[in-house]
Amino acid sequence: MGDTGEDSRERIMDATYRALIETGYADLTMNDIAGQSETSTSLLHYHFDTKEDLLVAFLDDLIERIERDLADLADADPVTRLYDVIEWYVLGAGETEREALHTAILELRGQAPYNDRYRERMRQADRLIRNALADIIRDGHESGDFTNGDPETMATLLLATMDGARGRQLAGGKPGYAKAVRAALYEHVLADLFSEEAAEIWSALTGEAEDR
Amino acid sequence: MGDTGEDSRERIMDATYRALIETGYADLTMNDIAGQSETSTSLLHYHFDTKEDLLVAFLDDLIERIERDLADLADADPVTRLYDVIEWYVLGAGETEREALHTAILELRGQAPYNDRYRERMRQADRLIRNALADIIRDGHESGDFTNGDPETMATLLLATMDGARGRQLAGGKPGYAKAVRAALYEHVLADLFSEEAAEIWSALTGEAEDR
Repeated sequence: MGDTGEDSRERIMDATYRALIETGYADLTMNDIAGQSETSTSLLHYHFDTKEDLLVAFLDDLIERIERDLADLADADPVTRLYDVIEWYVLGAGETEREALHTAILELRGQAPYNDRYRERMRQADRLIRNALADIIRDGHESGDFTNGDPETMATLLLATMDGARGRQLAGGKPGYAKAVRAALYEHVLADLFSEEAAEIWSALTGEAEDR
Repeated sequence: MGDTGEDSRERIMDATYRALIETGYADLTMNDIAGQSETSTSLLHYHFDTKEDLLVAFLDDLIERIERDLADLADADPVTRLYDVIEWYVLGAGETEREALHTAILELRGQAPYNDRYRERMRQADRLIRNALADIIRDGHESGDFTNGDPETMATLLLATMDGARGRQLAGGKPGYAKAVRAALYEHVLADLFSEEAAEIWSALTGEAEDR
């Protein structure tokens, strides 16, 4: 099979990912991206006029991936699903690739107030994750895992908290910050929300059970 | 009195503030800053070699201002002090100048992972505000306004939450997001922490009392 448009697009997205991880956003050039793929700069420009067009497509792909990941979670119990979504925001030691990607996204986020197209993607991702969190809380009320907490309010609170924690961890270069915030979130917010059984599942997931 | 070094520095910092608000960080040039002051570009370069040097000085000034603002708060009761610190993160309608400043700082924050000097300032500001929050919680325990909550844990949680809320508000262009998060924070975290009297002070401060 020859190189279809779909193939090239995928290769370019993959190259963008690698270039973002290596270079970050501000200093990224179309040449860097071409250098990461077997694609020539001219083929790159055939698909995408500007770096902005390319990054908008990259963000669209990222949003699709988040959607797929959230759909994959749907079969688990509400506590595990909640844990998994929150876990996205925790960057552990040695996760250098994920850290580099989120560092580049933090940069893009910083440009979003000045760029309608980036901003629209940030808003879409926000809505997606917030709705998923609210669904999880709602399902948890039905299953009896969660005993209180308005789904929309909780979703907004959880997302702001974990996102803020990761942002501060990256900008301040403080490993473990997001993990500390997750523990505080459990102690001050989630523990009040959880049934006894839910609390046990959570403790097992965070490994806190073993530490006590 | 002639133009002393201190005068020029102050004028340059003031011009940097206005230029950041107008242009943001990424597109900011030394010329923009000179254009905002009565300072020539050459005098600007006499004081600061690079845009980075200038912005590091600007961040240092900002940190000093935060320090002064926090010191000014020290006489108020713990609930009012807590409210005032959290209020910094709430950007209301019509606060366009503050919003523009924090938008520029969000951009700078996005560069911090790649820049040691910015990162060090982000970390300093983080430490300053976190310590202030922990002191407030500690004083609140002594005064009986707060009935539980480990000061360090609460400070980390509150800061991550409000910072995340403001960041999402700015990046997603969603007015009222930080305010909604503050309300959720009250409902799920602070209400459990506050004495009855403290809850009343808080409600009066947020104007929630009138809305009920």
